[in-house]
Amino acid sequence: MATPAQLKRNSVAQAVGEIAGLLGERLSQSQAVRDQHGDDLTWNPGAAPDAVAFVDTTEEVQAIVQICSKYEVPVIPYGTGTSLEGHISAPSGGVSIDVSRMNDILEVNVEDLDCRVEPGVTRKQLNSYLRDTGLFFPIDPGADASIGGMTATRASGTNAVRYGTMRENVLNLTAVMPNGEIVRTARRAKKSAAGYDLTRLLVGSEGTLGVITEIGLKLYGIPVSIAAGICPFPSLEAACNAVIMTIQLGIPVARIELLDEEQVKATNNYAGLGLPETPMLFLEFHGTEAGTQEQSEMFGEIAAEYGGGPFDWATKEEDRNRLWQARHDAFWAVKAAMPGKEAFATDVCVPISRLAECVSETKKDLDEQGLYAPIVGHVGDGNFHASLFCDRSDPDEVKKVKDVYERLILRAIAMDGTCTGEHGVGTGKMKFLEAEHGAGLHVMRSIKRAIDPKNIMNPGKIVQL
Amino acid sequence: MATPAQLKRNSVAQAVGEIAGLLGERLSQSQAVRDQHGDDLTWNPGAAPDAVAFVDTTEEVQAIVQICSKYEVPVIPYGTGTSLEGHISAPSGGVSIDVSRMNDILEVNVEDLDCRVEPGVTRKQLNSYLRDTGLFFPIDPGADASIGGMTATRASGTNAVRYGTMRENVLNLTAVMPNGEIVRTARRAKKSAAGYDLTRLLVGSEGTLGVITEIGLKLYGIPVSIAAGICPFPSLEAACNAVIMTIQLGIPVARIELLDEEQVKATNNYAGLGLPETPMLFLEFHGTEAGTQEQSEMFGEIAAEYGGGPFDWATKEEDRNRLWQARHDAFWAVKAAMPGKEAFATDVCVPISRLAECVSETKKDLDEQGLYAPIVGHVGDGNFHASLFCDRSDPDEVKKVKDVYERLILRAIAMDGTCTGEHGVGTGKMKFLEAEHGAGLHVMRSIKRAIDPKNIMNPGKIVQL
Repeated sequence: MATPAQLKRNSVAQAVGEIAGLLGERLSQSQAVRDQHGDDLTWNPGAAPDAVAFVDTTEEVQAIVQICSKYEVPVIPYGTGTSLEGHISAPSGGVSIDVSRMNDILEVNVEDLDCRVEPGVTRKQLNSYLRDTGLFFPIDPGADASIGGMTATRASGTNAVRYGTMRENVLNLTAVMPNGEIVRTARRAKKSAAGYDLTRLLVGSEGTLGVITEIGLKLYGIPVSIAAGICPFPSLEAACNAVIMTIQLGIPVARIELLDEEQVKATNNYAGLGLPETPMLFLEFHGTEAGTQEQSEMFGEIAAEYGGGPFDWATKEEDRNRLWQARHDAFWAVKAAMPGKEAFATDVCVPISRLAECVSETKKDLDEQGLYAPIVGHVGDGNFHASLFCDRSDPDEVKKVKDVYERLILRAIAMDGTCTGEHGVGTGKMKFLEAEHGAGLHVMRSIKRAIDPKNIMNPGKIVQL
Repeated sequence: MATPAQLKRNSVAQAVGEIAGLLGERLSQSQAVRDQHGDDLTWNPGAAPDAVAFVDTTEEVQAIVQICSKYEVPVIPYGTGTSLEGHISAPSGGVSIDVSRMNDILEVNVEDLDCRVEPGVTRKQLNSYLRDTGLFFPIDPGADASIGGMTATRASGTNAVRYGTMRENVLNLTAVMPNGEIVRTARRAKKSAAGYDLTRLLVGSEGTLGVITEIGLKLYGIPVSIAAGICPFPSLEAACNAVIMTIQLGIPVARIELLDEEQVKATNNYAGLGLPETPMLFLEFHGTEAGTQEQSEMFGEIAAEYGGGPFDWATKEEDRNRLWQARHDAFWAVKAAMPGKEAFATDVCVPISRLAECVSETKKDLDEQGLYAPIVGHVGDGNFHASLFCDRSDPDEVKKVKDVYERLILRAIAMDGTCTGEHGVGTGKMKFLEAEHGAGLHVMRSIKRAIDPKNIMNPGKIVQL
């Protein structure tokens, strides 16, 4: 008689065989392809799927999900592989569904400021395509991620403070559910009160409730004027207080990013910016000419009140681009500062009033442990990142880093914040959900069980059944 | 042996008895109180609950839900009773949970621009309370509804075009779930990627998944300058095109409301405004002095391009109030125009590019049927209301009105719109959810069954099990 393990292998083999019959060469079982699809290169353990399916249509995804459901084989959706919390790993094996070939922009409705795209479209691809329409899609998590992946992980980034996250910017989506049904979660109307919000349920569900195959997005007019600038502050507290005042006065800042002293040093060395090595805010304003000028001046006055400044701002595109390139390269700059060590990025988000305290306590903890971890933050939202550097061959340092990391997460939760503002749960943050959600986790489990009773959709992520 | 009906009556009596033991005089079985809590005075049939519980705390709600779960007796949450789609009726009897005594504002975090309130707090109460802080809560559905009810029905209203709906403005909430567990859906951080979005699942769930007992809300700084104005247009199409252009140019209009010719006539008669009797936009701009002036001027130019104008705008509070009072009285104005008839309000929402077409076809249909139904719209969102007048003693007219109503809803859905932009589903719009959501309705049913397996939470609303 076959053992359970043999039965499982048999059913995977049968499922893969049936899918190969559908996709031909678009079903890969090569070790290199499998490895690449199961590991996100973070400290979260990777695990290769049994096969990778390069899909072209919603109907193909449906057929694959039906086959995987029949044999109870896991399905793991894959976009660009740029997620950071182990979302793409296949700890129980199964079939990785790679949507990168589904990269058509299906419609752009200029009058309605919306579009519909396939999940493999990347944000840069979308914005290149949109340029002639005068519209843009603002969400910018740094990496050139796929819209499908950004939707599944509820991505945000530098200008969420003005434009919101994927939560606010996905108008509707189409998903193949675990039972093989194709569901479109909402219509194209800007708002609706017609039943449960299935769009928001799937945004951030990380592939555990269904495979997203089309996304309707909100778009925005490219601002007539964009002003950007940088402003040094004497302390982290001063910078955070200036941020609070800016938000409170309703200045519609498009980006407001904090770099701590360590990050500024690293960025100076990497990009040769020659900035004063003190906490620094990078800002951007969108509006009319008069509007961005007024916003910039108002911010300058606020900064001065908190001992910051001078606030240098520029409306020329090349100056702005140099600035934001330096901000986007923050991670590479700190990596260059610590050659030979690995960097583990994490993020938390707290109420903005607790931000200075949370960042300061974290820096104190890092200093006490003798660890290096520059901090960069989307501070208008109370969201910040630490890049924890670690020599993985040194077990003492690994322990220190893991302890500091855990204290950081629990500190954020204790401040009524969240264990992740934008990176998601994946496998990496699952252990913190009980502390964050309490009985809410039971509700999440009920939903997962009801929608995916066989637990085939990206199993082992978000909630353990 | 007892019949099922007798058993049911017995279990209701036992549940009510146990609740009376907890609440004493705060549990009412008076016919008048029961009738008032089961009927929303719309054309949706009312049905009185068996008893009304006037609760004081989350723990009392929990105890009541536990009792009702034990005896499988329905629970119907009640705020101010101002909902419009039969949400509060008790078609299977049960206990109405009246939260009006839970009206404390629990905390206001000025630095974080948020607050936490009990569900019985009304929006006007909250804004009075906030006045000294320089903050306000923008969502304004017209009626002085409770925040709990507004959350449960995903309310919006005149300034959703700028500030969003309850979907965007509820930060987190506490709910008693059908199994008696108390769940807080999220922390106070502005964004999070930590698991399924339980906040958005409960916003708009209309009491069918849990009883909301606390709500965390986003707040905004009161704008330094508010400008408001009115602008006549030669046609509905011209007015709608001006709206589209305004939104597309990114003018951050705070309110942009359409009144059709019939509505302007009725409003003139009711409020003596002396407006030209042609389609009219009512607008409001929020910002700095310079900002609102610039926005007003830009809108004036757009209006002129489409043959509209002159655009009269005012920044004085008394002038603005007179204007918005007239807008808010729109329903009373049309009621006064048709004495002796009942008015049935409904709403739909379509992509803004289809708005003019949807409104025009609806008006044509009304004219062909000889019916009177002025139209008012939150047109920046593509959302509009028709007040259908009907002599209920005339079966021919009732049929005509119902047919026009049904064609209106299906027309909106066919335009990729929704059967309700803001009034909700209740009992009134359930029959349209299949056309709107297709297989999505199966997902909604799965969720309802998983979270409320005994179907005690506001049964017979949104989804039929």
